[in-house]
Amino acid sequence: MSQATPPSRIWTAALIVIGDEILSGRTHDKNIAQVAAWLGVQGIRLKEVRVVADETAAIVEAVNSLRARNDYLFTTGGIGPTHDDITVDAIAEALGVSVVVHPEARAILEGYYATRGGLTEARLRMARVPEGAELIPNRITGAPGIRHGNVFIMAGVPGITAGMLDRLSGTLEGGLPLLSATVGCWVGESEVADLLRQTEQDHAACQIGSYPFWREGRTGANFVIRSVELAQLEACTEDLVSGLATLGREPVRGGI
Amino acid sequence: MSQATPPSRIWTAALIVIGDEILSGRTHDKNIAQVAAWLGVQGIRLKEVRVVADETAAIVEAVNSLRARNDYLFTTGGIGPTHDDITVDAIAEALGVSVVVHPEARAILEGYYATRGGLTEARLRMARVPEGAELIPNRITGAPGIRHGNVFIMAGVPGITAGMLDRLSGTLEGGLPLLSATVGCWVGESEVADLLRQTEQDHAACQIGSYPFWREGRTGANFVIRSVELAQLEACTEDLVSGLATLGREPVRGGI
Repeated sequence: MSQATPPSRIWTAALIVIGDEILSGRTHDKNIAQVAAWLGVQGIRLKEVRVVADETAAIVEAVNSLRARNDYLFTTGGIGPTHDDITVDAIAEALGVSVVVHPEARAILEGYYATRGGLTEARLRMARVPEGAELIPNRITGAPGIRHGNVFIMAGVPGITAGMLDRLSGTLEGGLPLLSATVGCWVGESEVADLLRQTEQDHAACQIGSYPFWREGRTGANFVIRSVELAQLEACTEDLVSGLATLGREPVRGGI
Repeated sequence: MSQATPPSRIWTAALIVIGDEILSGRTHDKNIAQVAAWLGVQGIRLKEVRVVADETAAIVEAVNSLRARNDYLFTTGGIGPTHDDITVDAIAEALGVSVVVHPEARAILEGYYATRGGLTEARLRMARVPEGAELIPNRITGAPGIRHGNVFIMAGVPGITAGMLDRLSGTLEGGLPLLSATVGCWVGESEVADLLRQTEQDHAACQIGSYPFWREGRTGANFVIRSVELAQLEACTEDLVSGLATLGREPVRGGI
């Protein structure tokens, strides 16, 4: 299949982070960065993230708008055993399918809880899936993630999500991975704005992002060049390094 | 105005985090948590967050859908001096207004850069605002944030955004702050799922969130009770503490 795909095809994904604890500021999200980085390695570009509350209507709306316009949709959070875990029901509603107990998920949970007090009704909730779903193994706490078509339903706890992503590695079709190079410089970004704009214009296959910082009373910035084409990336990076040197600014390859 | 507002009115806000660097996984966002926590203190509830790329169409769509259905809309990122800083132009497009140089912003930048090489064309970009906007002072790096109606345009660098939020403190109308209490317990959340559900049902003014964790080989969870009514919050918390004790589980007030 990948042979028939032209190299310029860009595969995209969206992520929905589900949870009142993120919206209240209580919990600092770690899933956006880890899903983003993992997708990058798969050759899939994260296009948009939404953080929504533990509310069915909010989840349904986000799922339906994002799954339609991306190749893949990931969700994190809300698949545990308690009353506030409504992700499976909300996604089933969005997909227009029933919620069923997945026999294999039930068997996994029976095994996991055999020595941990047995499979109670609350724990059995974690075997419920939108009808037609497959499972994503979870070696850490038993309860699996769920795949339904292009929708991937993952845990909220980052360490568990990491294990699920690891199991999915290499199984999703993607395009060319987005490559990047970083050049740092102790310079105010406004001093090199023209150089950045011109360098990006000279390399149509590259984007340059400028990320300023202030440390120890000094002003600096990292410039990140991104491209799917290695030769273009290297040429653009060299031009930026030369340009900074020409302006009397010392470029730091790899960033500061 | 607040006297005429019934206490049950809930004020809401949305946040748009603008930046390829978040979507690539390169930068871990810190603005969601800090804006969320600050809004909570103002009595404003963060309802939804979107992370979008540095693309005009994506920003315009997010701005227009979120500002219509929330009392306030905040954005972070993309207001610097470089070519990838397109937030002001995109938001002006969303609002249907022109982009103009704000005279006071220009004066601020002239002062700030007087001893730093002068106000170049690139730096003057940071004085551009959607027509009709007011400024939000930035004591750290000069370039101000921007308010246009219910839209608040903030910096991407978290320390600068913090300063802008600080200047806005107490100026936005909000409702009752959402109060919370946390009870931790070394217990699998599935073992207390029924207790959590029943306790929440018994206290209609409260929501209970359950946040499991695994540390040092042990299973635990924090239960966060939220309410705008202190007496209800305390009653619900007491019932949960008693319920955990009745099940033979030691509750830890304040969380683990």
